[in-house]
Amino acid sequence: MQISVIRLGHRVGRDLRTTTHVSLTSRALGANEIILCGEHEPQIEKTVQSITERWGGEFYITYSSNWKKTLREKQKNGFTLVHSTMYGEPIQKIAKKLQTKRKICIVVGAEKVPWEVYQIADYNISVTGQPHSETAALAIILHELQKGKELRKKFSNAKLRIVPQKKGKKVLQL
Amino acid sequence: MQISVIRLGHRVGRDLRTTTHVSLTSRALGANEIILCGEHEPQIEKTVQSITERWGGEFYITYSSNWKKTLREKQKNGFTLVHSTMYGEPIQKIAKKLQTKRKICIVVGAEKVPWEVYQIADYNISVTGQPHSETAALAIILHELQKGKELRKKFSNAKLRIVPQKKGKKVLQL
Repeated sequence: MQISVIRLGHRVGRDLRTTTHVSLTSRALGANEIILCGEHEPQIEKTVQSITERWGGEFYITYSSNWKKTLREKQKNGFTLVHSTMYGEPIQKIAKKLQTKRKICIVVGAEKVPWEVYQIADYNISVTGQPHSETAALAIILHELQKGKELRKKFSNAKLRIVPQKKGKKVLQL
Repeated sequence: MQISVIRLGHRVGRDLRTTTHVSLTSRALGANEIILCGEHEPQIEKTVQSITERWGGEFYITYSSNWKKTLREKQKNGFTLVHSTMYGEPIQKIAKKLQTKRKICIVVGAEKVPWEVYQIADYNISVTGQPHSETAALAIILHELQKGKELRKKFSNAKLRIVPQKKGKKVLQL
């Protein structure tokens, strides 16, 4: 399954850490790319590229100044658009259907999401109807789409790799 | 299953948003309480209490100025201490064992976690060995511990409740 993530409405400074977390969660949990929209804060791309360089795998982070065009293009290219929102249909009802798709693009908002996103999206899905965190919601969506297989993903060409330990830390320098 | 979360090493200002997200994720995904450690920022407790009041359910948020004592107390009270760390054993290997426990306390770090935490913890577990987000890792751990049942949790005495929609938003005022 090919997975893209689109982060909407980034605000410089205020969202620096959460957008970085959304990006790194996308990478760690099996997405192939993230496209950042809203205000442009190049520091995030640098941070995520540097992590990809050291920790391996193929992951692309880019910026788009036109989110609507980017959403439409993804749809035209055969991606199913899944908008993560607490107002949508429960992930546990939709997961099976989504697992059969070849290309999925998950849309994650920061500030208030424009109503058109709800219209353009093929699915509006919720991870509980409770207020919590877009990073947590994204993690559960990625996990459900890939049935947990993302947890065993290998990251090629890594310079650093952790060897799991019961106690303590072990990092290989490759 | 009774689930507590302990947030270690909060830093005023810098971690305001992530600690709030960790707290709200704990609440939304089925934990019973969170105990905040590190620097004290009462605004977080107010925010989370106000959300619990409006969105329902029983969820407790408290502050402890002595994390070590708090960890030891949980252990003494029969909680299995699970430390979320990228250096630990993969969640997918440990999940089955943890699902049989009656009381689990998940420890989530902010800044660098003291080495004693790795020693005190009954399990150090990782959600991938990749750098990403403590909120995402917590979400996956809560999801795996409860086998996805947390997504259907009912929140009693709610003043607000979302009715899931294919498009748009519907919130009931109860």
